[in-house]
Amino acid sequence: MQHPFDQALLLTPTSDNHASGASHPAWANMVGPFGGMTAAVLLKAVMQHPALLGEPVSLTVNFCAAVADGAFDVQALPVRTNRSTQHWTMSLVQNGETVITATAVTAVRRTTWSATDAAMPQVAPAAECAAAKPLSLEWTNRFESRPVQGGLPQVWGGQEASSLSQVWVRYAEPRTLDLLALAALCDVFFPRIFVRRASRVPIGTVSFTSYFHTDSAQLAALMQPQSFVFGQAQAQCFRNGFFDHTAHIWSEGGVLLATTNQVVYYKE
Amino acid sequence: MQHPFDQALLLTPTSDNHASGASHPAWANMVGPFGGMTAAVLLKAVMQHPALLGEPVSLTVNFCAAVADGAFDVQALPVRTNRSTQHWTMSLVQNGETVITATAVTAVRRTTWSATDAAMPQVAPAAECAAAKPLSLEWTNRFESRPVQGGLPQVWGGQEASSLSQVWVRYAEPRTLDLLALAALCDVFFPRIFVRRASRVPIGTVSFTSYFHTDSAQLAALMQPQSFVFGQAQAQCFRNGFFDHTAHIWSEGGVLLATTNQVVYYKE
Repeated sequence: MQHPFDQALLLTPTSDNHASGASHPAWANMVGPFGGMTAAVLLKAVMQHPALLGEPVSLTVNFCAAVADGAFDVQALPVRTNRSTQHWTMSLVQNGETVITATAVTAVRRTTWSATDAAMPQVAPAAECAAAKPLSLEWTNRFESRPVQGGLPQVWGGQEASSLSQVWVRYAEPRTLDLLALAALCDVFFPRIFVRRASRVPIGTVSFTSYFHTDSAQLAALMQPQSFVFGQAQAQCFRNGFFDHTAHIWSEGGVLLATTNQVVYYKE
Repeated sequence: MQHPFDQALLLTPTSDNHASGASHPAWANMVGPFGGMTAAVLLKAVMQHPALLGEPVSLTVNFCAAVADGAFDVQALPVRTNRSTQHWTMSLVQNGETVITATAVTAVRRTTWSATDAAMPQVAPAAECAAAKPLSLEWTNRFESRPVQGGLPQVWGGQEASSLSQVWVRYAEPRTLDLLALAALCDVFFPRIFVRRASRVPIGTVSFTSYFHTDSAQLAALMQPQSFVFGQAQAQCFRNGFFDHTAHIWSEGGVLLATTNQVVYYKE
């Protein structure tokens, strides 16, 4: 039995730059699939493209409309190939309408001087943190989350609080974290307005950007199938219908794996 | 005499979704024009498009290759128009080759509950900070920068330091800040590796994303032609040829105007 993440990633090439896929019920969100899964599908189209150079450095996904349950066509176009970097534009189309636009940069990396300025905060280890209660959204069952702080409010009473969340997280069904699984994890954080205001207003991510600070070889060396990663997300500004958050994902040992930002529509 | 920013922004529509422009010597960088100017040109193509809905919420610009001095064609395509949001893909083409890809989201904003979680740090006012010394790069003369901390190193000796920069900045030739000028300002920060390592290694931004937390009406109310804004940038991770930074731009009074991130190639 294939892992539910790999089932949802399945894309069948239909021509040079096109592949067909479908939403998968294991990743159902309020409307359509979990956005992180959709981001991973778009990156998968790049990573299985025969012209691929290197591995992902950046990924931006714009959610033009909700992905409907059912089949979709993904286009991944290598727009420009340089000596060590490659630029991609992608889209996801359903019933002739563009639902997602995206861009990615991939690169062949060389070993250079490296340093991490965004250090992982000192927090209690995953083993000492309790798992979050299950939610009714199907995709949330695909992850095991152990909040350190800033979990979903116990009471939806509209009381204001910090928008900072810290959480240990891993795929519920064990699977060694690779770049695609990391791309999906970058969207694992609940909408900051839920945490900030203890209020479940309608929301929808409009644009989502991730930078990858690791590669397949390093992930293979760092990760076991049951390893946790540590995630932190914090809102920066809520203004007239849109808020953004900035987030970081570190390995259990404090290696920064990805930094990610998104801007989200909210209704009030 | 038109302001040098407006001179460089000039785009002449050539068909529904295309316009022609040209690099401007006032914005010359090491190779080609200042990236922030290029980002503003791409956003200008959106903002002057007859089908435009609303104002920018997010902008991602991917630098596929250096923009050459001379003419270019900009395409801005409204891919999807919803009730209050609109999704755009853009590109800049020179001699038949794609040099830039970009995406943007625009929206009609409604007044809602708003809050800023990323507060402006307490720093000395602009009037108490000395202007940075002029540099030989032409575009840097288009801005007046007054570093609070983390200016360019006095000695390029390779000594490691913090990657945090704080700076008061405004257009050198007075011009009231609007959304396009803000989009360009989002790229005003020197490459973090210059500050972090006191080393001028070859660099090039590969992807650049900005979120706008303000609109034209608020900017018009907040800004005078000679107003400063306060910018802060900090690297997050340098790893094997690519680093990212996260940055914020506030008004003099502490209103968060934009949050912006970029990932940059570096050679060593």
